[in-house]
Amino acid sequence: MKIIPGGVTAPKGFEAAGVEAGIKYENRKDMALIYSQRPCVAAGAFTSNKVKAAPVLRDMRIVEESPYVRAVVVNTGIANAATGKDGLKCCDDTASEAAALLGVPEDSVLIGSTGVIGPVLPMERIKAGLKKLVSAKAAAKGSGFDAATAIMTTDTHPKEFAVELEIGGATVTIGAISKGSGMIHPDMCTMLSFVTTDAAISKEALTKLVKNDVKDTYNMISVDGDTSTNDSFIVLANGAAANPVILPDTPEYEAFGKALHAVNEHQAKALAEDGEGATKLIECKVVNAASKEDARLLARSVISSNLTKAAVFGRDANWGRIICALGYSGAGFDPGKVCLYFDRDGEKFTLYEYGRGVDFDEDEAKKILSASSVRIVADMNDGCESAVAWGCDLTYDYVKINGDYRS
Amino acid sequence: MKIIPGGVTAPKGFEAAGVEAGIKYENRKDMALIYSQRPCVAAGAFTSNKVKAAPVLRDMRIVEESPYVRAVVVNTGIANAATGKDGLKCCDDTASEAAALLGVPEDSVLIGSTGVIGPVLPMERIKAGLKKLVSAKAAAKGSGFDAATAIMTTDTHPKEFAVELEIGGATVTIGAISKGSGMIHPDMCTMLSFVTTDAAISKEALTKLVKNDVKDTYNMISVDGDTSTNDSFIVLANGAAANPVILPDTPEYEAFGKALHAVNEHQAKALAEDGEGATKLIECKVVNAASKEDARLLARSVISSNLTKAAVFGRDANWGRIICALGYSGAGFDPGKVCLYFDRDGEKFTLYEYGRGVDFDEDEAKKILSASSVRIVADMNDGCESAVAWGCDLTYDYVKINGDYRS
Repeated sequence: MKIIPGGVTAPKGFEAAGVEAGIKYENRKDMALIYSQRPCVAAGAFTSNKVKAAPVLRDMRIVEESPYVRAVVVNTGIANAATGKDGLKCCDDTASEAAALLGVPEDSVLIGSTGVIGPVLPMERIKAGLKKLVSAKAAAKGSGFDAATAIMTTDTHPKEFAVELEIGGATVTIGAISKGSGMIHPDMCTMLSFVTTDAAISKEALTKLVKNDVKDTYNMISVDGDTSTNDSFIVLANGAAANPVILPDTPEYEAFGKALHAVNEHQAKALAEDGEGATKLIECKVVNAASKEDARLLARSVISSNLTKAAVFGRDANWGRIICALGYSGAGFDPGKVCLYFDRDGEKFTLYEYGRGVDFDEDEAKKILSASSVRIVADMNDGCESAVAWGCDLTYDYVKINGDYRS
Repeated sequence: MKIIPGGVTAPKGFEAAGVEAGIKYENRKDMALIYSQRPCVAAGAFTSNKVKAAPVLRDMRIVEESPYVRAVVVNTGIANAATGKDGLKCCDDTASEAAALLGVPEDSVLIGSTGVIGPVLPMERIKAGLKKLVSAKAAAKGSGFDAATAIMTTDTHPKEFAVELEIGGATVTIGAISKGSGMIHPDMCTMLSFVTTDAAISKEALTKLVKNDVKDTYNMISVDGDTSTNDSFIVLANGAAANPVILPDTPEYEAFGKALHAVNEHQAKALAEDGEGATKLIECKVVNAASKEDARLLARSVISSNLTKAAVFGRDANWGRIICALGYSGAGFDPGKVCLYFDRDGEKFTLYEYGRGVDFDEDEAKKILSASSVRIVADMNDGCESAVAWGCDLTYDYVKINGDYRS
C-alpha cells in the first residue's frame, strides 16, 4: 500500500466538483459533488443522535435499499436538521434535480448537509448550484480538491487523502475527503467523510468493513463532546479497477480493509487535529486493557476531558486530570496497576506509576506539551487489548468560534 | 419550612472553624472543621470515579461502619488523590491527631480534601492546622462562614445555606456548606458538600434520603463534564433538636426530606452558578418525558453540552444545539413531538415546536440570554415525568483557569 496524491478523484471512474452556490456564505465554495461514471456499491455509518438530519434519514434508506449509488451532493452552511417534512422534501427535490441533470436514477443520489440546525435550505440556490456542479465535474485531481474545499465549515484547511494497493493483479485506489471541526464526538462522530474506491467489492464485504472500521477511526475522535445530527461516513466502490470482486474474510478483504483503515485513520486524525480552535492534536493510546471495549472507553474518555484538553493547551503536565478521566470512563480497572507516560518519538516520559505520581522534569514536560501533537499512553497492566483515540486542546478560540457561530 | 441565616453551625450542637494552614496557598483559609458536640448519625454519597481519593476511600468506610461521627476535617489545595499508601496514611494520621485534640474516637472523624491530584499532603502543616482549628472552633454563625470560606478552591464566593422546620413539636434546623467550581459532573458530582442537622433521625432513614436526593440535586449539575476523584456529600444529624426520631416513610420523614432537598437543591444550583469562569446559570427543565431516568438524562445532556454552553455565553439562541444535545443523551424520544422554549419569569418564549424551529424575535432572545440565569424547558410530550439540571456557560475564563491551574 502506498500513499498517493489526491482525494476522491484518485480512484478510476470518479469525478467531482466544488462550486460557490451562496447557500449561507458569500465568496466561498459551499456545494460539492462526487460522481461515479459507473454504479457503485455503497456502505455507510451515520450519526447515533436521535435527532437525525433529513439527509441522514434519506441516505440511511438509500444505502440500505438502493441497488447502487452514482452520486453524492453536499451543501454546507445549513444542516437541514430539525426541519420536519420541509427538510425531507428539500432532499427529495435535490436528489430529483441532480438525477435529472446527471441522467441517473433519483435513488442513486446521496445527500450530505452540514451547518446551522434549523433553517430550511434555499432550494433555488441549491438548484442553481447543482447545475454549476454538473457542468464543472471532472476526474481531475483539482476537482477532488474543490470538493474537499466546498464541504468545509469551520475547518481551517481541506482534508483529502488517497492510497493505492495491488489486489489480484489490479491496482486498487482509495480516496477520501472529510470535514469536521465542531460538534465532533465519538459514536459516528465525523461530520462528513466520503471515501471513493475503484475496487470491485461485494456489498456484504464493504458493509462489514465499514461497520468494523468506524469503531477504531471516526468513533475514536472528539472535539467537543457534542454528537452531531448530520454525521455521515459513506464509502462508494465502483469496480473500475477490474480486480476480482472482494468477498468477506478473504486475504483480499484483509488487504483492502487494511488500506481502507489507513485512509479512515488518517482522515479521523486530520479532523481531530483541525478541531475548532485547536492548537494541537492529542492522541491517547491505551495499552494492556482488559477488553477492547474498555480500551476504547478509556482512550476516548481522556481525549474528551475538558480539563485535560485545557491543561494541554496550557502546556501543564497535570496528569491528575488524565487518571481522573480514566476513572470516570465507565471502564473497570485498578488504579494501583496503571502507568501513564508521554510518548516522545518512541521514548517514554513517565508521569505516574502504579497508583502514584513520579517526579519528573517540569521543563521537559512543558517542551513535550509544546509540540504540535501530544501522545499520552496509559498502560492499564490488566490484559492485552489496546485502542487509540484522537482529540485536540480546548482553547480561547473554541469559545470564541462557538459563542457566536450563527452570526 | 423557612430559610434562615447561616450554614453548618445553624443547627444546635454544631461548631465549626476555618483557618490558614498554608497547605498550598498563602494568606487564605484552607483548612476547615465541622464538629458536633454529640454523636451524629451520618450518611453520604461519594464519587463514582474508579480513581477515588484517599479521604473518599476512608470516609466511605467510616460512614458505612462507624457507630457514629463527631467531626469532619477538610483541607483545600491538595486532593490527596492518586497518592497510594502514603495518601491513606496521611488520612489516618490526620484523623488520629484530630481525634486526640477533640477527645473523640478516631473512627468518628471524617476527612475531605480538594485540590491538585498527585502531591502528598504536608503533614506538619496539617497537624499545625488541626491545632488552630480545634482552638478556633465555635458554634457562632461566623465560624460556619469561616469553614465555608476555607473549603473553596476556584469558587468565587462561599456557599452556605440553612432552613428550619417543625417536626413533632420541635424546631429542626438543617445547614450546609459546599464548594464546587471545576471537575464537576453528574454522578456524585459536587466536589464537597457538608450538611448538618440537629434532627433526630435513624441511620436507615437518613441513608435512604441521601441516596434518593442526590439523584435530583448534586447529580443534576455539571460544570465541565469531569467527574472528580474527591466528590463527597455528607450529612451529619446529631439529634440535638430532641424531636421524636424520624423513621423511614413517615410524614416526618417526608417533611424532613423535603427540607433536606431544598437545602441540597439550593447548594447544587449555587455550585453550578459559580462554575469555573461562569457568567450565568443555565437551568434545563425536561417535562413530560417517558420516564424519570429519561428526563434526567435529557436535562443533564443539555446543560453538559459544550456547544450549548458556549452559545449561551455568546447570547446566541442557537436552539439547534439544544435539540442536538437531547438527541445524543441516550434517552429515546420522537423529535417530532418535542417543543423547546425559554422560561422568562413563567412566560414561554418558544424556539422549536414539533420537529421544527419557529420564527422568534432574535433581539428578545438575546435579552433573555443576557440575564444572570437562563431557563430552558424541553417538553417531550411523551409521558409525565420531569427533571431539572443546572450548569453554567463555557467562557474564556474557564479555559484560562484550567490552562494553568497547577501553577
